[in-house]
Amino acid sequence: MNSIGKEFVVTSFGESHGKCIGVVVDGCPAGLELDVEKIQKELDRRKAGDDLTSSRKEEDKVEIISGIFNGFTTGAPITMLAWNKDVEPSEYEKRRFLLRPGHADYTAYMKYGGFEDYRGGGRFSARITAGFVMAGALAKQLLNLLNIEILAHTIEIGGIKISDVTIDDVRNNTEKNEARCADLKVAEKMIERIRQVRDEKDSLGGIIEGIALNVPVGLGEPVFDNLDGELAKALFAIPAVKAVEFGSGFRSSRTKGSENNDIFFMENGKIKTKTNNSGGILGGISNGMPIVVKVGFKPISSIPKKQKTVDVKDMVETEIETIGRFDPCPVPRAVPIVESMMGIVLCDFGIRTGFISRVIK
Amino acid sequence: MNSIGKEFVVTSFGESHGKCIGVVVDGCPAGLELDVEKIQKELDRRKAGDDLTSSRKEEDKVEIISGIFNGFTTGAPITMLAWNKDVEPSEYEKRRFLLRPGHADYTAYMKYGGFEDYRGGGRFSARITAGFVMAGALAKQLLNLLNIEILAHTIEIGGIKISDVTIDDVRNNTEKNEARCADLKVAEKMIERIRQVRDEKDSLGGIIEGIALNVPVGLGEPVFDNLDGELAKALFAIPAVKAVEFGSGFRSSRTKGSENNDIFFMENGKIKTKTNNSGGILGGISNGMPIVVKVGFKPISSIPKKQKTVDVKDMVETEIETIGRFDPCPVPRAVPIVESMMGIVLCDFGIRTGFISRVIK
Amino acid sequence: MNSIGKEFVVTSFGESHGKCIGVVVDGCPAGLELDVEKIQKELDRRKAGDDLTSSRKEEDKVEIISGIFNGFTTGAPITMLAWNKDVEPSEYEKRRFLLRPGHADYTAYMKYGGFEDYRGGGRFSARITAGFVMAGALAKQLLNLLNIEILAHTIEIGGIKISDVTIDDVRNNTEKNEARCADLKVAEKMIERIRQVRDEKDSLGGIIEGIALNVPVGLGEPVFDNLDGELAKALFAIPAVKAVEFGSGFRSSRTKGSENNDIFFMENGKIKTKTNNSGGILGGISNGMPIVVKVGFKPISSIPKKQKTVDVKDMVETEIETIGRFDPCPVPRAVPIVESMMGIVLCDFGIRTGFISRVIK
Amino acid sequence: MNSIGKEFVVTSFGESHGKCIGVVVDGCPAGLELDVEKIQKELDRRKAGDDLTSSRKEEDKVEIISGIFNGFTTGAPITMLAWNKDVEPSEYEKRRFLLRPGHADYTAYMKYGGFEDYRGGGRFSARITAGFVMAGALAKQLLNLLNIEILAHTIEIGGIKISDVTIDDVRNNTEKNEARCADLKVAEKMIERIRQVRDEKDSLGGIIEGIALNVPVGLGEPVFDNLDGELAKALFAIPAVKAVEFGSGFRSSRTKGSENNDIFFMENGKIKTKTNNSGGILGGISNGMPIVVKVGFKPISSIPKKQKTVDVKDMVETEIETIGRFDPCPVPRAVPIVESMMGIVLCDFGIRTGFISRVIK
Repeated sequence: MNSIGKEFVVTSFGESHGKCIGVVVDGCPAGLELDVEKIQKELDRRKAGDDLTSSRKEEDKVEIISGIFNGFTTGAPITMLAWNKDVEPSEYEKRRFLLRPGHADYTAYMKYGGFEDYRGGGRFSARITAGFVMAGALAKQLLNLLNIEILAHTIEIGGIKISDVTIDDVRNNTEKNEARCADLKVAEKMIERIRQVRDEKDSLGGIIEGIALNVPVGLGEPVFDNLDGELAKALFAIPAVKAVEFGSGFRSSRTKGSENNDIFFMENGKIKTKTNNSGGILGGISNGMPIVVKVGFKPISSIPKKQKTVDVKDMVETEIETIGRFDPCPVPRAVPIVESMMGIVLCDFGIRTGFISRVIK
Repeated sequence: MNSIGKEFVVTSFGESHGKCIGVVVDGCPAGLELDVEKIQKELDRRKAGDDLTSSRKEEDKVEIISGIFNGFTTGAPITMLAWNKDVEPSEYEKRRFLLRPGHADYTAYMKYGGFEDYRGGGRFSARITAGFVMAGALAKQLLNLLNIEILAHTIEIGGIKISDVTIDDVRNNTEKNEARCADLKVAEKMIERIRQVRDEKDSLGGIIEGIALNVPVGLGEPVFDNLDGELAKALFAIPAVKAVEFGSGFRSSRTKGSENNDIFFMENGKIKTKTNNSGGILGGISNGMPIVVKVGFKPISSIPKKQKTVDVKDMVETEIETIGRFDPCPVPRAVPIVESMMGIVLCDFGIRTGFISRVIK
Repeated sequence: MNSIGKEFVVTSFGESHGKCIGVVVDGCPAGLELDVEKIQKELDRRKAGDDLTSSRKEEDKVEIISGIFNGFTTGAPITMLAWNKDVEPSEYEKRRFLLRPGHADYTAYMKYGGFEDYRGGGRFSARITAGFVMAGALAKQLLNLLNIEILAHTIEIGGIKISDVTIDDVRNNTEKNEARCADLKVAEKMIERIRQVRDEKDSLGGIIEGIALNVPVGLGEPVFDNLDGELAKALFAIPAVKAVEFGSGFRSSRTKGSENNDIFFMENGKIKTKTNNSGGILGGISNGMPIVVKVGFKPISSIPKKQKTVDVKDMVETEIETIGRFDPCPVPRAVPIVESMMGIVLCDFGIRTGFISRVIK
Repeated sequence: MNSIGKEFVVTSFGESHGKCIGVVVDGCPAGLELDVEKIQKELDRRKAGDDLTSSRKEEDKVEIISGIFNGFTTGAPITMLAWNKDVEPSEYEKRRFLLRPGHADYTAYMKYGGFEDYRGGGRFSARITAGFVMAGALAKQLLNLLNIEILAHTIEIGGIKISDVTIDDVRNNTEKNEARCADLKVAEKMIERIRQVRDEKDSLGGIIEGIALNVPVGLGEPVFDNLDGELAKALFAIPAVKAVEFGSGFRSSRTKGSENNDIFFMENGKIKTKTNNSGGILGGISNGMPIVVKVGFKPISSIPKKQKTVDVKDMVETEIETIGRFDPCPVPRAVPIVESMMGIVLCDFGIRTGFISRVIK
């Protein structure tokens, strides 16, 4: 339901226009000196803020209400939240029963019998990912102890793709532009395209690539708690995600084994592979190469453009115009969210496998 | 680890060249008249048998050793297994320490310290999916009570794709050809291509589309037990799967919201959508439209062609030739496996949501 | 770790002298009109307040920060908390490394390497049961929909026992006295005994009986998710509980089968048993008779009396005097806590078994 | 349902008069050299065999069908089973609808709508504990690596109690007598009493004490996955168990804190307690002292003596005489079962806490 993980358990709570968005993290080992600034910084990356994003302005200041003592984790559950400030519930009353095409309005109404908090999508709003990012920022601090680095960047928006970039491009360029694209020239085109579509009162999808470096060999459990399966499950929890592939993914479906197999070789006494078509995962277990996953986002469904729909109360066809705040493209803000979900899953496996020991020495 | 599901729990056991392959299904409601023939029929679909598949010949006869009484489920755990017959362990001793590129040999060795059963891939062999199919065949019988139908078919092999086919094509044509492709003409080309690559001692990947019809609105739990997330997790448990997408998937990442949103309309007093880009899932919950998922398989890694690799014992570079039985393409035999994983997940949610009541009346 | 339940999942957070005590309840069906006053009333029952209890004065005002909309549950996780007000951390610094005999100081220190929040016992304080009571009060409102009534009362303190009382005595008398004993005369003796031992700077244990009425037949899952097993697990989560028995419990170990077996008979077309030695549970499943459980509490370990102990930092023997606030007997305040744990477990099984439907109609 | 444990997961299957009784153990680390003789020996301890036990004669020969390779555990799920041989189903047809007082016949019938396997109690038979013992015997071999020793012995039968015995008495005397009592003189009286009651066609209850020695400090998770809570849950899965207490248990409810608190002192540089009223558990976590638990069994409900009951089909009152095989007292055969449940739980925590590493070096 609203928890993920086995030994590093993240429980999400809060609603888009409720009092707060938050998260409880259970299973974090004691003894981590928590850098709250880093958590805030990740939250800030996720925030709306420029003309490419929603006009909703939330301070999103993280507040930690349990689990930290004298600046260190204690082994107790860590509860983090941000109070909602900029809520406009009245807006949502007007179109209470008008189903936004492509949105969860319909399935939520059917599942919860009309009792769901529908304001701004309630639990189905991308706003709940603020909680994911708090947990992810904590996970990343634990993973840093193992020297694991997690990166994500935009590789495609509205059909505009990057060509190959280096890890250093990703490290250096991603935060330098509003598209979070590691290729600064392509980034400009993406931004231009988003603006154009926004002005059409429409929205765009795109693809994010997530990368985890220095992951030790051995994370992941056969046969059902695969590293790829758990990563996929976590990534599909991000609103608007419709596709996930590892390594060469669907492209590998068009190749021959002799082309796609990553050849093992020796380097400095360690076994590595020449290519990384597997995306760092063999048999559901990390093989020491970079974990590489591509995450496909559909265009945000909630658009100002007039659309046909149904009034679920009267069960008649009608039209809807979503007046108000919207993000024309989910992708740039989702970059830290993808990193967070990867961090949460890797942290869980790190604890399960004993790489992150329960009491940090 | 080796269990999946929350209320319909499937536990896998057995090894490729051990005594048996089996599965325990816990949580199956009492009172289902079990059709064992149907389970056997699904197992037979998964079996090797023609010149496109491995020469390993297993009878794969399902034996039920618990949970059934007088032909009905009792509410107790159902244990099903097939005894392994055609095992050739000696073959594997020779290349014990030669890592097959693209295979789990390396990660298994590292994770289990050399104690893993390496014969034929052991727990990492696609042979364990025989157990998945037993559980899936049971799940399908439960889903039939809700009128849910699950289908899968090959839509692409080695770059050869089908064009649009109807549901009836899928129902009628899939089992008529060795490629399990619903377009009989394209099927011939696929088969031709597999034969050609097989003769090159190489292998091919491909894509399977899974479809679930008549799924009621409301299966799936926000925010972490999404229907899409759980389906993805289950599908990534199939060996060689590297990509999963729902509905228009990665294609939606290249569209605009106004193009991708599925417009709601009324039909016979029910709410439907004109298109199904969402693949039947909105906000992680089924919306009553067909569930549509595409599953990308890499080419099978274990090929007879000579490849460079490493000897993990001596830590030196060397070469490997996988003499012996192999499948040149995993896709045709995986069609019933994809159906099984979909069935297992839908059954679990069917029970969780109360659509399949705990005691069948 | 800090969660309990499968479909009605209660996650506890907060520390004795941290910012707050709280709980997240996930899996509560949508559509329950929540009576917050009733939750507050249960919290008030748990509060210290008279001369038999700790002098710590906490307002314990419940605040709900997620999951409720327009007064109803929405199906989303419900987060409830009470902010800590009356904290005196300085007191605890002085005897930081002096292990209180019988307390978790030692095991917490060893498990968390000294990073645990030791102030007032931190996570090991009985104060965290305020969260249990919030969740239990919610559970009881759900169970009321099935007409299930949960009661608890003190049956023994410091060796002073009640004789038989009726259900109406329990309903009418328990809240009328500080011992929460249904026999008002025995209650006076218990209170007298507590005062006496308190003046000796010592503490007392006792026994609470929990009763659940109108529980339908069929709650509980064989073989490992027994109703008795899950109730026991939940009750042992209450600090100071050392013993749990159902029905005639240890007494039945001294009887013969012909004496202990509850004879079935017909009453108004329903099957009942003449006696209830089973405590309403046969084969781990409720049989429709009252669930009856006895819960044994040890005397509170934290007493003002001087005791020998060890300084865990210097690893030397020394003495400790716990100056400050203490409860001379845990039992009276634990009565609503026992009810809460029973409510949480029954609610979980009520949902799992389909008696409490996921969307309340 | 039919699984217990988080990282060392035991799944039970099989029925009293079905084909077999078995168990899947998932999460056992790779690299343990399994002593199958020891498993058989534990099974033999559980078997009926003398005139104090049922006349059902089962060979109970353990067969391992997965998870072991070259004599070592591989990290894969270990499936163990014993085929049922001595089944007499016809006996059970005659009294199909006659509810045995005190047995699960009634609750099983109601829960599974008559589809349950009722032969010999089906899933509710104590015969399923053969599977628990297989898993427990495996767990004990893992715990031996940590030098943990698990013992159990009969301390009371039909009101006849032992006085204090030493650990060596338990080690040396328990297997020397049919009552499994460490005091050989008291054992004679217990045996005499069982014979007497057996001849009355009646049954007896009793109490077993379980002890775990050399348990490291730190097993158990606050606040809901307590060591005591998980042990209690596992012990209540044994049929006929109605009461569980740790250390001084209910007796501590009659004492004062100053009497019950275990005083810490130093011994050879280690912290110990002078008494062990806590039963080795403080705050839900092991404190390094022996884990001591008392388990109360009711007399076996299935007795040959004529009893009043109800016919659940016709819903009329009638009488029942359970002709056939029965155990007059569950306690002696339950001694290895108590040890097994303790072993399973300690093993699970041993893995979770990292004391038993995932790959045994």
